[in-house]
Amino acid sequence: MALLVQKYGGTSVASVERIGAVADRVARSRAAGHRVAVVVSAMSGETDRLLGLASAIRHPPRGRELDTLLASGEQASIGLLAMALEARGCPACSYTGAQVPIRTDSSYNRARILEIDAARLRAELDAGRVVVVAGFQGVDETGSITTLGRGGSDTTGVALAVALGADECQIYTDVDGVYTADPRVEPNARRLDRLTFEEMLELASLGAKVLQIRAMEFASKYRVPLRVLSSFEDGPGTMIVPEEENGMEQPLISGVAFTRDEAKITIHRVPDRPGVAFRLLEDIAASNIEVDMIVQNVAPEHVETDFTFTVNRADYERARELVNPVAAELGAERVTGDPHIVKLSLVGVGMRSHAGIASRMFAALARENVNIQMISTSEIKISVVVDERYLELGVRALHEAFELHQG
Amino acid sequence: MALLVQKYGGTSVASVERIGAVADRVARSRAAGHRVAVVVSAMSGETDRLLGLASAIRHPPRGRELDTLLASGEQASIGLLAMALEARGCPACSYTGAQVPIRTDSSYNRARILEIDAARLRAELDAGRVVVVAGFQGVDETGSITTLGRGGSDTTGVALAVALGADECQIYTDVDGVYTADPRVEPNARRLDRLTFEEMLELASLGAKVLQIRAMEFASKYRVPLRVLSSFEDGPGTMIVPEEENGMEQPLISGVAFTRDEAKITIHRVPDRPGVAFRLLEDIAASNIEVDMIVQNVAPEHVETDFTFTVNRADYERARELVNPVAAELGAERVTGDPHIVKLSLVGVGMRSHAGIASRMFAALARENVNIQMISTSEIKISVVVDERYLELGVRALHEAFELHQG
Repeated sequence: MALLVQKYGGTSVASVERIGAVADRVARSRAAGHRVAVVVSAMSGETDRLLGLASAIRHPPRGRELDTLLASGEQASIGLLAMALEARGCPACSYTGAQVPIRTDSSYNRARILEIDAARLRAELDAGRVVVVAGFQGVDETGSITTLGRGGSDTTGVALAVALGADECQIYTDVDGVYTADPRVEPNARRLDRLTFEEMLELASLGAKVLQIRAMEFASKYRVPLRVLSSFEDGPGTMIVPEEENGMEQPLISGVAFTRDEAKITIHRVPDRPGVAFRLLEDIAASNIEVDMIVQNVAPEHVETDFTFTVNRADYERARELVNPVAAELGAERVTGDPHIVKLSLVGVGMRSHAGIASRMFAALARENVNIQMISTSEIKISVVVDERYLELGVRALHEAFELHQG
Repeated sequence: MALLVQKYGGTSVASVERIGAVADRVARSRAAGHRVAVVVSAMSGETDRLLGLASAIRHPPRGRELDTLLASGEQASIGLLAMALEARGCPACSYTGAQVPIRTDSSYNRARILEIDAARLRAELDAGRVVVVAGFQGVDETGSITTLGRGGSDTTGVALAVALGADECQIYTDVDGVYTADPRVEPNARRLDRLTFEEMLELASLGAKVLQIRAMEFASKYRVPLRVLSSFEDGPGTMIVPEEENGMEQPLISGVAFTRDEAKITIHRVPDRPGVAFRLLEDIAASNIEVDMIVQNVAPEHVETDFTFTVNRADYERARELVNPVAAELGAERVTGDPHIVKLSLVGVGMRSHAGIASRMFAALARENVNIQMISTSEIKISVVVDERYLELGVRALHEAFELHQG
């Protein structure tokens, strides 16, 4: 008799048949006595189709109207899934983001959830109905439709689980859990039974694209029990847990992650004084471009230094445009960039108590002649930037060097 | 400096290129100093695509969830058109039915507009922006999305013109006006410069599918100046005017109309007493099935009579299911039906002062051996039901007999 939030991605509702399979699964959960709130994405390919239309009209597409357009994709999904549930005798009611309402700020295309008023959904659940909520979308204070950005349906799922006080947030996807590496790149990759929030956060941010990073932050902050499972086959999936619940024996390394579509920008010989790093990233942050790695070496004579950061490849041109005038204003020598890089990372909570992981990692890459362009480390991960052509080679080398195929 | 409501149908926004052409036209109207509110339908084919998905999930598709699904089509259109306007430097803002809000009752799939609160739209127009409103949809008092049924975007256009006190409601379509007959059936058909509301009402209800009938009723009731024009070429179109403005010289007959997808149902030997006709149609009306012609002959001995009515072919099976138990309850002999009929009609305000139109009509059909199954007349039209195979033949025979190719 649990209260479950089940989130189904675009591939899970890609066709009428798959929507039927999702409805079967939801109806089974309800028949087992659970109260179920479902969050769905747009049918696979639909968001890209709409983006294609928008791009043909205005390039790059953005702003309020893009969100009105894109939100129609999830609206279609919730109507179809609710109909499929009704067809199975399972009472259901659909809700757009605005109908819930899921209140967000007005940063169109990348809005942030401010508050979810779950009163109506709770009343529906209490009346025995399944609620089907559109992921990825919300409404701002003026009543305009907003979207949360790519992958935002995960965030909707977790935020809804928090708002409803759900017992578990289940993320159904096209993989049956979280792996030690992407199985498409590393055939020996192994499914993990459990993972800490921190590790999952790093894995998500590093491109193991099972969960959107903001969803993870949310889940971690509010300690929502989270499970990643397959919508195509039954199985336990991977449970994401707070660290103390993860048991005593922790593996040294949980997995190898990568981010495929990265780009780096370097500002050369910028004055080494307080406030420079802030000024360099100020406009980029204001434009809601997410900056990933930031590397700055100690300046030899504390006069000038080189400053490098990475962004998603889609934001590369815009980030360069934004940073150029600031670099000139600060008297930097020049700005260079490379949109053909990837990031490889080792992730694991066990890492923090063990020296020697980094050198073992660098040695493994050196054996394969993979040149390391940038290095950055945190408590539970080590990331390196390499040329994009070394992605597969690098992932397999690290997976083997740390014997991740063994449980 | 007029306030215009421009309504564009699905074929006018069928592609990115056509949306661009609509944006050009709207931007020109605004540049000419007009304030413009635009109403758009879903892209041509989109509603059918969504209905196809829904039918595969639940047949027949209906209810609240169908409206949530279908309304996504117009939502995509308004986002795209508003973006196209912005790309042309024309400030624009899109509104779904719920955002306006366009308040309707809760008859899902066939909702009726109760009230339009135009305050927000008026503020946008006053601020110099074009408003782009989703046709066909509204919101009920619980906040659920509703749709107005096929062709409902015309109704949205006219209702919006009323709410805004617009100077003219322009219906852009794929034809350049109203013709004396459908040019695809009668090559000699001629465009009419003006037409009275009453004539247009009859023509619309009879399948000259330029305007949806409810839109016409609305326009007539509130005396909204209405113009039908082509979105593909420039031209004056056809102006729809109140009768007294139509000038002194009225043609005898304005045009020949037809309805292609009709079906008839006959209840045989039903008792001829008060209340029977009401009972026979009560459940059908409650199901929002539109009944078109109703014919009942005088009973020979005032005991039993035959009662026939016509409905849209799509409603035929459901109407039969609804009428069967009522017929049995009333002691009728049997119920028969024919889903393969069409209706041909002569329409013209000049008709009412001239005798002999009907006999001339029947003679023209008899000359071509077209058998007349039912006859019904009003002040400004005469309609006959014939077998569907006589449609083209009948239209051409009437067009010629009344010399409609001559202005």
